Amino acid sequence: MIKCAEIQKAISVAFTTVAFILGVVTSVLSGYLGMKIATYANARTTLEARKGVSKAFFAAFRSGSVMGFLLAADGLLVLYIAINLFKIYYKTEWEGLFEAITGYGLGGSSVALFGRVGGGIYTKAADVGADLVGKVERNIPEDDPRNPAVIADNVGDNVGDIAGMGSDLFGSFAESSCAALVVASISSFGTSHDFTAMCFPLLISSMGIVVCLITTLFATDFYEIKEVNQIEPALKRQLIISTALMTLGILLVCFLALPSSFTIYNLGSTPKVVKWWHLFFCVAVGLWAGLIIGYTTEYFTSNAYSPVQDVADSCRTGAATNIIFGLALGYKSVIIPIFAIAVAIYVSFALAVFYGIAVAALGMLSTIATGLAIDAYGPISDNAGGIAEMAGMSHHIRERTDALDAAGNTTAAIGKGFAIGSAALVSLALFGAYVSRASLTSVDVLSAKVFIGLIVGAMLPYWFSAMTMKSVGKAALSMVEEVRRQFNTIPGLMEGINNPDYATCVKISTDASIKEMIPPGALVMVTPLVVGILFGVETLAGLLAGALVSGVQIAISASNTGGAWDNAKKYIEAGASEHARSLGPKGSDAHKAAVIGDTVGDPLKDTSGPSLNILIKLMAEESLVFAPFFAAHGGLLFKIG
Amino acid sequence: MIKCAEIQKAISVAFTTVAFILGVVTSVLSGYLGMKIATYANARTTLEARKGVSKAFFAAFRSGSVMGFLLAADGLLVLYIAINLFKIYYKTEWEGLFEAITGYGLGGSSVALFGRVGGGIYTKAADVGADLVGKVERNIPEDDPRNPAVIADNVGDNVGDIAGMGSDLFGSFAESSCAALVVASISSFGTSHDFTAMCFPLLISSMGIVVCLITTLFATDFYEIKEVNQIEPALKRQLIISTALMTLGILLVCFLALPSSFTIYNLGSTPKVVKWWHLFFCVAVGLWAGLIIGYTTEYFTSNAYSPVQDVADSCRTGAATNIIFGLALGYKSVIIPIFAIAVAIYVSFALAVFYGIAVAALGMLSTIATGLAIDAYGPISDNAGGIAEMAGMSHHIRERTDALDAAGNTTAAIGKGFAIGSAALVSLALFGAYVSRASLTSVDVLSAKVFIGLIVGAMLPYWFSAMTMKSVGKAALSMVEEVRRQFNTIPGLMEGINNPDYATCVKISTDASIKEMIPPGALVMVTPLVVGILFGVETLAGLLAGALVSGVQIAISASNTGGAWDNAKKYIEAGASEHARSLGPKGSDAHKAAVIGDTVGDPLKDTSGPSLNILIKLMAEESLVFAPFFAAHGGLLFKIG
Repeated sequence: MIKCAEIQKAISVAFTTVAFILGVVTSVLSGYLGMKIATYANARTTLEARKGVSKAFFAAFRSGSVMGFLLAADGLLVLYIAINLFKIYYKTEWEGLFEAITGYGLGGSSVALFGRVGGGIYTKAADVGADLVGKVERNIPEDDPRNPAVIADNVGDNVGDIAGMGSDLFGSFAESSCAALVVASISSFGTSHDFTAMCFPLLISSMGIVVCLITTLFATDFYEIKEVNQIEPALKRQLIISTALMTLGILLVCFLALPSSFTIYNLGSTPKVVKWWHLFFCVAVGLWAGLIIGYTTEYFTSNAYSPVQDVADSCRTGAATNIIFGLALGYKSVIIPIFAIAVAIYVSFALAVFYGIAVAALGMLSTIATGLAIDAYGPISDNAGGIAEMAGMSHHIRERTDALDAAGNTTAAIGKGFAIGSAALVSLALFGAYVSRASLTSVDVLSAKVFIGLIVGAMLPYWFSAMTMKSVGKAALSMVEEVRRQFNTIPGLMEGINNPDYATCVKISTDASIKEMIPPGALVMVTPLVVGILFGVETLAGLLAGALVSGVQIAISASNTGGAWDNAKKYIEAGASEHARSLGPKGSDAHKAAVIGDTVGDPLKDTSGPSLNILIKLMAEESLVFAPFFAAHGGLLFKIG
Repeated sequence: MIKCAEIQKAISVAFTTVAFILGVVTSVLSGYLGMKIATYANARTTLEARKGVSKAFFAAFRSGSVMGFLLAADGLLVLYIAINLFKIYYKTEWEGLFEAITGYGLGGSSVALFGRVGGGIYTKAADVGADLVGKVERNIPEDDPRNPAVIADNVGDNVGDIAGMGSDLFGSFAESSCAALVVASISSFGTSHDFTAMCFPLLISSMGIVVCLITTLFATDFYEIKEVNQIEPALKRQLIISTALMTLGILLVCFLALPSSFTIYNLGSTPKVVKWWHLFFCVAVGLWAGLIIGYTTEYFTSNAYSPVQDVADSCRTGAATNIIFGLALGYKSVIIPIFAIAVAIYVSFALAVFYGIAVAALGMLSTIATGLAIDAYGPISDNAGGIAEMAGMSHHIRERTDALDAAGNTTAAIGKGFAIGSAALVSLALFGAYVSRASLTSVDVLSAKVFIGLIVGAMLPYWFSAMTMKSVGKAALSMVEEVRRQFNTIPGLMEGINNPDYATCVKISTDASIKEMIPPGALVMVTPLVVGILFGVETLAGLLAGALVSGVQIAISASNTGGAWDNAKKYIEAGASEHARSLGPKGSDAHKAAVIGDTVGDPLKDTSGPSLNILIKLMAEESLVFAPFFAAHGGLLFKIG
């Protein structure tokens, strides 16, 4: 005989599965469409570059915006529709409804594992492989059509930077929305059936889309880009305008959607009374922390400022000093972002516990459309340059696309800063939800169980990074072999008489990325299970906290170090100042040293660094899902004793 | 009118100050004598190398042993005498006595700040400066007497590797002894006036000296080194023999010195009943964790195994892949040591709370004499080679000293592994003492105050490393300028007709190291004060935990990465296998790539990595000293709210 409770459980599992599939489909679809748009936009940008830098910038930026809005709007729309459809069954049983909806977040972050880790391996295997044989061994320029891996490299830019970044941010958005919704459902919003207030997280994101739409007009309609050196300020202005407008937007949403006072039930113990303007500060502090992280990243990775110029200068004494200065720059660049995150955490937690953290994450992500637009702008410009090179277009056009690309390098770094900052807040919100579901009332560092979790957790990002870096190395090596093989066996390839076999290289990158993402993926997926089952919920809580506080540092430093090396190289190549010219030109000893730094930075900034976002988010999400099971049956090792 | 309590307080401050001065003097004296011995031993080893590798090994190893035993015995003797002298005043008031004695630990670690950080900057400023001009610009060999910085480089090996390592380990020894003594004094040992049991930490260390003495005979008397390839196994055997014998030694001490059952009062709440054999496991688990860390370090940094050989192989595709593989190796090398430390923490904490952690640290340090012997052996052999080069001795002699040196590189890395492992345990013990003195009953990660401390604490090692790396860079730059100046202005220097001005280079290194250690030193000293006063004891507890779990990872990975690069270079140079010869010889492209890795690794392994030990230990020690003050008056920022 089937019991009623069992039927209900089966239905709830079914709904969660549907939400999971929706999350997966939405993420994949957004990524797919984003890549399609980017691919069309590449060629378009190249063609527009014939008419001038201004036109090319518009083409690249507008296509980036399409990607940004697509993802933000799709994610929100599907979530909203799903909630309303689920409501038909669940009616006012809010807790059940929003617990089922959490599948959406898990779906989004599962795709992010593929997008970020797999995509990161894909893009750098192709990039490093193409460079090592093409630039180093055969001495042909970057993006030369004779290089068999050149198409794989271009594809990789789209896979890693467009789809990877998109799925990462989508995952953060979906997870923080779901985390906030679940807490809202068990708070006074739920008990008083205030659906509008419950949907506060969605309203914030909706307002974000409107604000970003207005912001975009500032880049494309209100101002006009006439010269190359206006590009970077224009992109930076996007950030500050969207943040300023969004602050007003948040105020409006908080005022209209929230009751003047309400109660958050989180972490058992004492319910927390929250006023509507408390929540304003929670969201706003996340939003502004994002801006601070963005500007700090820009300062440390743009070659307009002294940090990158110092790194470029250190190339004078060779590659070794370049590496030392670059690593030191990355280490230093974590200081301000960590303070910004710490302030955001303290304020939002003090005002509205873990619900505050979740909406702070949403605040940081509320300008996601703008963030993704200026981020996607980077690879689009990069590939536009590649197409100009391959099509044998005039030198002027390549110069224009290069100028677009240099600004794109910095904005890509800013995007990564946002991604890791929001990942930190999201993970913390998920951590709070985990602790609550695992019925832990405290996570005491003075307990040995927690402390060993903490120290091992802090080690995991190192283990994971070692794996992803090695994955890139191995995948790049297969690429190197294939490229060498083609140069050696295809007659007339170097002379440009015969075409290389691009498809095989694309296939190698694809296969390698899928194969090589298994070990790091397994580390992410298996660790919470093993720790939860063998050591129990307390050690797992320590592990999540340790991985979070350690991973965020490596992620920031790795992506800033890589970005700085890349731009130090570009600084020497561009030779825009007296100082830069004294280091150049291309091919000088200092430039060679800078190229070495750039190559080292590639896997750091595009694979191992950003992949850590996935490590900390997905481990927390998975622990959350299995929390009741671990609480009931976990900790086998300690039970023996 | 002066009150009695005030007089007592003044006397206690006076005693603590005396203990502090004793700690400083002992550390300085041991370091000074160690450097003296090493300086005599250098030349002696070079001369013995004329008779064969076996004689040279004996000279180097025996002098290293003198340094090891000197430090271990001095530290113990002074501490024991001080306790007995203080006892004349304090009589059986154990708590007061041992609280006064803690000054000894603080004194030791203050000197370590100079020894490790200042010494680290000194040695690498000279080394990198000498190499950048001598090897790179002027193309003269290493240790060539025409290089003005060559003497500073040799001095630096003694300052950084002998005095720096010695003061670091002495600090760990003194701090863990003091931490254990204080806890013992307030436990049942104290209340039952069992002075022998209270002195258990000292007895462990005494037994360690006896065991190490026997162990040394295995290297110098029981076996004989006949060939070069016997050196590394002989040194490794030292570790395993001393650990095995010491296990028996611990058992003996525990059985003889401890009552069969006793009570530890630590962390208020519930007193912990401990059996004598519980403490055996606490000490033994620390001892064996040290051995595991040592062997893991050896595996990842010796060129006899695949990790370093893979790094060497990656030099085939250039410096960039060498750097990537080296970084990945360092990241990977933290896994096993962290598990070993975690097990040691769990077992010792579960058996005897923070007293267990303190004696586990002493267990790891009990073979300090052997550890320092094989560690000091490294720089002695290194400098012996330098002397052979400078004295223009025959090629055979240089080959023999090089072989000694290659083994020394690995043992130096092992020494660093021990140092960081014990620093982690010591910091944790101090952390426990801090928490207890600050009257905290829990350090809950779910509290925002603690969490922001945790994440900012995890950031500090990055900030500190950025500072120390930059310090080396700046100091090396001043050295480069001076060396260039001498080459340009002293006529006949390159031809070897005139001598360079060695003294000025030594002075530059000395001045630079003292000046450049101020910013990182200030970070260590000021942070606990600022955090304690502004944010209070809870945030400070989070900060200490965060810095500990994050710092230990960077320290291990930095020193192993650096060690691996150094030995990958030596692997190519030695050309001992078919594979190695395919990468060489000296001057090949692969070798050049390896040299770049080696230079990057220098500040990582000898400055920024090991300096982190000081960061985590000294911050904990300082917090402990000010804990009552912070608990009473700290947390100003949160009081406003």
